[in-house]
Amino acid sequence: MQQFLSVHDVADPHQLVREALDLKNNPYAFESLGRHKRLLMLFFNPSLRTRLSTEVAAQQLGMHVISMNASEGWKLELADGSVMRGDTAEHVREAAGVIGQYADIIAVRSFPGLIDREQDYADTLVKAFVRYTGKPVISLESATRHPLQSLADWMTILEHQPRQRPKVVLSWAPHPRALPQAVPNSFAEWMQVADVDFYITHPPGYELDPAFTGSTPILYDQREAFAAADFIYAKNWSPLMPYGQVVNQDPDWMISADKMAGTRNAKFMHCLPVRRNVVVSDAVIDGDNSIVLQQANNRVFAAQAVLRRMLLAAQH
Amino acid sequence: MQQFLSVHDVADPHQLVREALDLKNNPYAFESLGRHKRLLMLFFNPSLRTRLSTEVAAQQLGMHVISMNASEGWKLELADGSVMRGDTAEHVREAAGVIGQYADIIAVRSFPGLIDREQDYADTLVKAFVRYTGKPVISLESATRHPLQSLADWMTILEHQPRQRPKVVLSWAPHPRALPQAVPNSFAEWMQVADVDFYITHPPGYELDPAFTGSTPILYDQREAFAAADFIYAKNWSPLMPYGQVVNQDPDWMISADKMAGTRNAKFMHCLPVRRNVVVSDAVIDGDNSIVLQQANNRVFAAQAVLRRMLLAAQH
Amino acid sequence: MQQFLSVHDVADPHQLVREALDLKNNPYAFESLGRHKRLLMLFFNPSLRTRLSTEVAAQQLGMHVISMNASEGWKLELADGSVMRGDTAEHVREAAGVIGQYADIIAVRSFPGLIDREQDYADTLVKAFVRYTGKPVISLESATRHPLQSLADWMTILEHQPRQRPKVVLSWAPHPRALPQAVPNSFAEWMQVADVDFYITHPPGYELDPAFTGSTPILYDQREAFAAADFIYAKNWSPLMPYGQVVNQDPDWMISADKMAGTRNAKFMHCLPVRRNVVVSDAVIDGDNSIVLQQANNRVFAAQAVLRRMLLAAQH
Repeated sequence: MQQFLSVHDVADPHQLVREALDLKNNPYAFESLGRHKRLLMLFFNPSLRTRLSTEVAAQQLGMHVISMNASEGWKLELADGSVMRGDTAEHVREAAGVIGQYADIIAVRSFPGLIDREQDYADTLVKAFVRYTGKPVISLESATRHPLQSLADWMTILEHQPRQRPKVVLSWAPHPRALPQAVPNSFAEWMQVADVDFYITHPPGYELDPAFTGSTPILYDQREAFAAADFIYAKNWSPLMPYGQVVNQDPDWMISADKMAGTRNAKFMHCLPVRRNVVVSDAVIDGDNSIVLQQANNRVFAAQAVLRRMLLAAQH
Repeated sequence: MQQFLSVHDVADPHQLVREALDLKNNPYAFESLGRHKRLLMLFFNPSLRTRLSTEVAAQQLGMHVISMNASEGWKLELADGSVMRGDTAEHVREAAGVIGQYADIIAVRSFPGLIDREQDYADTLVKAFVRYTGKPVISLESATRHPLQSLADWMTILEHQPRQRPKVVLSWAPHPRALPQAVPNSFAEWMQVADVDFYITHPPGYELDPAFTGSTPILYDQREAFAAADFIYAKNWSPLMPYGQVVNQDPDWMISADKMAGTRNAKFMHCLPVRRNVVVSDAVIDGDNSIVLQQANNRVFAAQAVLRRMLLAAQH
Repeated sequence: MQQFLSVHDVADPHQLVREALDLKNNPYAFESLGRHKRLLMLFFNPSLRTRLSTEVAAQQLGMHVISMNASEGWKLELADGSVMRGDTAEHVREAAGVIGQYADIIAVRSFPGLIDREQDYADTLVKAFVRYTGKPVISLESATRHPLQSLADWMTILEHQPRQRPKVVLSWAPHPRALPQAVPNSFAEWMQVADVDFYITHPPGYELDPAFTGSTPILYDQREAFAAADFIYAKNWSPLMPYGQVVNQDPDWMISADKMAGTRNAKFMHCLPVRRNVVVSDAVIDGDNSIVLQQANNRVFAAQAVLRRMLLAAQH
């Protein structure tokens, strides 16, 4: 595996998620695999869970890890041919080319600007690192996707599903700020691969790009969507149009105990961080059916499965 | 040991300080103890000595260490039941619950706001990490105490005491800014446990909370307090009332060679960082009796003794 | 070797560069040398290449590495005898004395302020760390020199030289901001030691301090300087007078394909980061003769050679 930017980079996602679950049972089984191998994580945006879980994953494989907050004054030029008289002191060609020499696997986090949709969806930065590092690249959340989160989410569903082919519902929820579409985009892609019945519910105007949702049924009625659901995955995102704006904070879309009562005793999921009593009520997230901590825990093993594959591929 | 927030968490402090001194003689004696164990240090406030010395301690025990500056944009909600529409993007319940899964021991630094005394003295943040991580928690200085500093200070006193039951004097000293009471509170607690004659001297109005000082004699006359002292521990703190204000910068309280001459050839101590020629004169801190660097060095072994106990406890 | 601040600290630079080239062939040959040894890197200014390459170097020697961004609110007092009522919370005597106890080798980056030339050229900060840490100190670029860069540059020249005693030209190039003289100063010192014919070309008024350039021929005509050159090393620097100002951004000094055509098929070098189409045209830096990535890669082995010598010296 030379890149892990989306589910499309994985030839056999069902096998990958099984590998991740196996690693959870025996985290140090491949500790010698990463000997003398180095993971370099570059954060163009802040990170807590992602940084920690990926660092833990690499350590458990015996790798060295170096984290850099590129956001502290390291502005990269992305445009080819530009005359660099302005704010950017280095071109991504050199930056990526240099760090590609310092590590065996590169991981990059870069959020969208939420100003220019076309520019965000080109995912230029992470693709430039793929092109110019010459090393395997892992997305730690790009403008369009968060694949390690989705893989961890899938693990968590497999661990908690009450039946074959459970019903999984991705529900929009309110939030005071404009958030990216990366998590819902990515979750939609992975759920279409998984053995689940997948639905999305959101207010009108919050349609995600069909390039990610495909033929997933979209319901504007949240309660109808929740009926007979086994998993409710809550997440806010901002609309594609007007892009990057907050147009709806309707508190009726918050995930409440009342709504959860309309499901098939569904588990509650969220990628975190989550705003309590805005996205979800205390009663739901503190309840027995909340598996948000399990999702976060699985981030370690999702990352470890991907790193392991890249290390194995490099041996050949 | 499940938490190390104060001397009250230590069943046998005299034994702990001996263990710390033993580790100083053989820092790598327990290097295999930390194999596959991880320390996560979370800094809600900047740190130099504390971060470095604790990281060194963990490395010498063979642990993996991850440091996070939570202060870079990671604002936690502490209040239960709040509707999180404001600045805080994550509740400490989730934050602590998540990181508790990523590490074996959690260490947290969090200074007081120095605006609301009652809120500061509740020490809410570090206590929330104890409650929600499910893992042993070490205070790297909280709003009220700095126990690793005090343990290192005690080690240093034991190494340099010229007689059994030396006289130790904690002296307030001037400073241009309002500083917390954590170091003096904590030092007072530990000195009451140690085999020393302990006194505190400060200007009127700088009384510490008796919950920490107990029956320690308080003297308003600094020279009188210094008489026959074996150790002078200098430290500024801001008053409890008016809380968080600088009400006294009287340069007469600076620790000078002249005042040190009135002691029993006392050693000079300070936790650092120290403002020269404000808190203490160059002549004193550069003199042969200054043991401030030794205190800082002992921070490594104080942390190592605490980490070692937590690792041993986790084996059972 | 107790300090590595300049080429003058190296008794046998020709031997050192050979050791660096040998390490490149076998990076883990001395992995046991750094066991239980710790490198502490202190950054008073941001760093990408330097931090990563030096950390990689230390890891390959089996060392523990700790990086600190001292720039995050850790302001040191450098003046002796000052009454510290102002911005600086700690004197470098204590700061350096403390961290010297926490590590076996200290590495420090500190840029010039570019306001007061005399103060900058005193290189007070790095010298204070040499004086007060009591440990070997490596400069990761000081106000006046960048010796690890120069050593890596020399390695790269030796790897690519088309003939014995190649002609090497250091050329000033335009830049929108005032940059330090550290890289050209240092490169000049090392090239005078190497077996090369070394020239410098820059516009009038950009003379470097002769303490660094010695008897190196200076040419104001860039094309004349480039004639028969085997290596063109481009770099901007600000003038010594008026100090820290940008007085010339003449685009005619940019390194272009046309000018490179006037060389002896010269390799193009730059320490990076580089502003494309200001310092150098895309055609040159993207061309086959560009060896800027090789320079960056050699930073690892330059650092490793220096660290190895310090570790060996400490064994005796």
